[in-house]
Amino acid sequence: VRLGARSYSIHVGGGSLPAELSRYPRLRAPATRAFLVCDSNVQALGKRLVRALGRRLAGNAIIQAGEASKSLATVEHLYGAGARAKLDRHSIVIAVGGGVIGDVAGYFAATWLRGLPVVHVPTTLVAQVDSAIGGKTGVNLPVGKNLVGAFHQPLLVVVDPTTLRTLPEREYRAGLAEVIKYGIIADATLFRRLEMRFDRLLRREPSELAWVIRRCCTIKARVVSQDERETTGLRAILNFGHTIGHGIEAAARYRLLHGEAIALGMLAAVGLSQRVLRLPDSEAERISSLIRRAGLPARLEGGISDEKILAAIRLDKKRAAGQVRFVLARRIGRVRTGIVVSALSIRKALERLRA
Amino acid sequence: VRLGARSYSIHVGGGSLPAELSRYPRLRAPATRAFLVCDSNVQALGKRLVRALGRRLAGNAIIQAGEASKSLATVEHLYGAGARAKLDRHSIVIAVGGGVIGDVAGYFAATWLRGLPVVHVPTTLVAQVDSAIGGKTGVNLPVGKNLVGAFHQPLLVVVDPTTLRTLPEREYRAGLAEVIKYGIIADATLFRRLEMRFDRLLRREPSELAWVIRRCCTIKARVVSQDERETTGLRAILNFGHTIGHGIEAAARYRLLHGEAIALGMLAAVGLSQRVLRLPDSEAERISSLIRRAGLPARLEGGISDEKILAAIRLDKKRAAGQVRFVLARRIGRVRTGIVVSALSIRKALERLRA
Repeated sequence: VRLGARSYSIHVGGGSLPAELSRYPRLRAPATRAFLVCDSNVQALGKRLVRALGRRLAGNAIIQAGEASKSLATVEHLYGAGARAKLDRHSIVIAVGGGVIGDVAGYFAATWLRGLPVVHVPTTLVAQVDSAIGGKTGVNLPVGKNLVGAFHQPLLVVVDPTTLRTLPEREYRAGLAEVIKYGIIADATLFRRLEMRFDRLLRREPSELAWVIRRCCTIKARVVSQDERETTGLRAILNFGHTIGHGIEAAARYRLLHGEAIALGMLAAVGLSQRVLRLPDSEAERISSLIRRAGLPARLEGGISDEKILAAIRLDKKRAAGQVRFVLARRIGRVRTGIVVSALSIRKALERLRA
Repeated sequence: VRLGARSYSIHVGGGSLPAELSRYPRLRAPATRAFLVCDSNVQALGKRLVRALGRRLAGNAIIQAGEASKSLATVEHLYGAGARAKLDRHSIVIAVGGGVIGDVAGYFAATWLRGLPVVHVPTTLVAQVDSAIGGKTGVNLPVGKNLVGAFHQPLLVVVDPTTLRTLPEREYRAGLAEVIKYGIIADATLFRRLEMRFDRLLRREPSELAWVIRRCCTIKARVVSQDERETTGLRAILNFGHTIGHGIEAAARYRLLHGEAIALGMLAAVGLSQRVLRLPDSEAERISSLIRRAGLPARLEGGISDEKILAAIRLDKKRAAGQVRFVLARRIGRVRTGIVVSALSIRKALERLRA
């Protein structure tokens, strides 16, 4: 990820994580001590890292997996642990786990002594291809998601696809929604590869996973390098499927995983793309077919009402102080941003998801 | 302050603050709404700004002046108020008050939606010449000062010296310690001017204040522009008098104002400078004479023990994971950083402050 002085590497590869970490000069400096923040779901990996860090370990904290941990209370808990561990300017934070742990530990690192370096070791597919890259950190408040946060680019991201072996099937498939998204927004070759070798991916073959994750990370890194703080608009392409997807996620009151809501949002965006940008029917069919093969929801349940979805979208719109702007696809691999869509068109798109 | 895309202006001038704010294009943009965070000590000014902002006011909060407000609890209070005011990416924060309010409101701005622009309107002398410039924001934890924070450069700093009219005499004089510091570390001309026209400054003549504040801000801006995050070491020159000064401040358990402790710390540093860098006796005498004219403490009371001061300095040292390094003066206007001083020399310097 090229960001001048804040540039960093993403290392994707199987095998021994501790060995990987120790290869980096910054982590080998004599004064460096590490504070480990570990997801409750990957404690075995956490223990291995604790052993590997040895005397360099300044302290560690285990955070319960799940969105509820993405809170100021968790951050305060980390501040207390950080104080006990006497973290100083020579300390680094290592965040091991899914997206929530990366967000919270990243925010903790961003705000301790005005910023300690953080190394992300993402252990879910969504975190590996998306949330660990790009420097977004933060927590939710009771009144809204992601209201508090900081941009804090990591020192390094270490992705080990073998950590996905123990990921529950439903979460793994939710992660595939983001993988498919990358193909649609920027990479027709990736999309074709997914179509050809999707069975290997579903079996979590490490070599296939490494190839796919590397490809996704490359796209995300390119976008973030060109639009670190969402100012030029390029970063908006990452929101394909997310406008309606977020609305569905909120309306479903989180009965759906993020990736599942995004899959539905992408299908809605595909419908809009056919009408507004003349996305060819054959390509639309290829997208919905791949989403179905991933075992992701392709139909909107009755329990999630249009009104609730539209209200949630309007709330997002209000926050952006303007019109909802969509990212739509012209072809697989090419999208356009900033497209205004009427509420009626959104309703029709939702209707098609119920058919 | 030149920091690439994060560059900003410091406007120093008397007169109508609301008018000054409205001159800036970013504040005139139609979508811009302002959230005002106001010090309990300057509520009259706050009310004027509220009226001037009119429909652009998104909300406001009053923060009790004093170090106790520099806490996570205050920041959480601001998060609540920010949510009620529905602050979005088009909102800005205006911080009106002393150093504590600038630190807390700046930190709130740094972390709301991953960073809103902040305008600082400092109303104490210390804030006007020092804390409002440079982007340091943050809060204390019960276990230590400034443990949580962020670098967040403001959009603009507006300094109106007439706001100092109501500042209590003791706080005003504490601010003069930082003014004198700028003369010692970087500006012999400023120091000479202070010697020549100190009575006008003590009378708070607006034109003299504007000249002096502008000169101090220029120095701080130059240092921050070259060393935004204390990485190159240049920013360390701002710590002249602060190593022992912080130790005295902590040992006095905050019975002394920051500026008063720094005055004593500068006198100790002057003594060390005479011995280590052969600062001429005549210049040392000029410095202590000016500190006395400012009505700042020149003698260390018996109640503040050497042991406590040294323990606090050692704690700072531990945090920096290395030796305490001093900033000492070769002449008025020229300092050197990174000078290692023995505990015995520090003890002797403290002894001289008790004579």
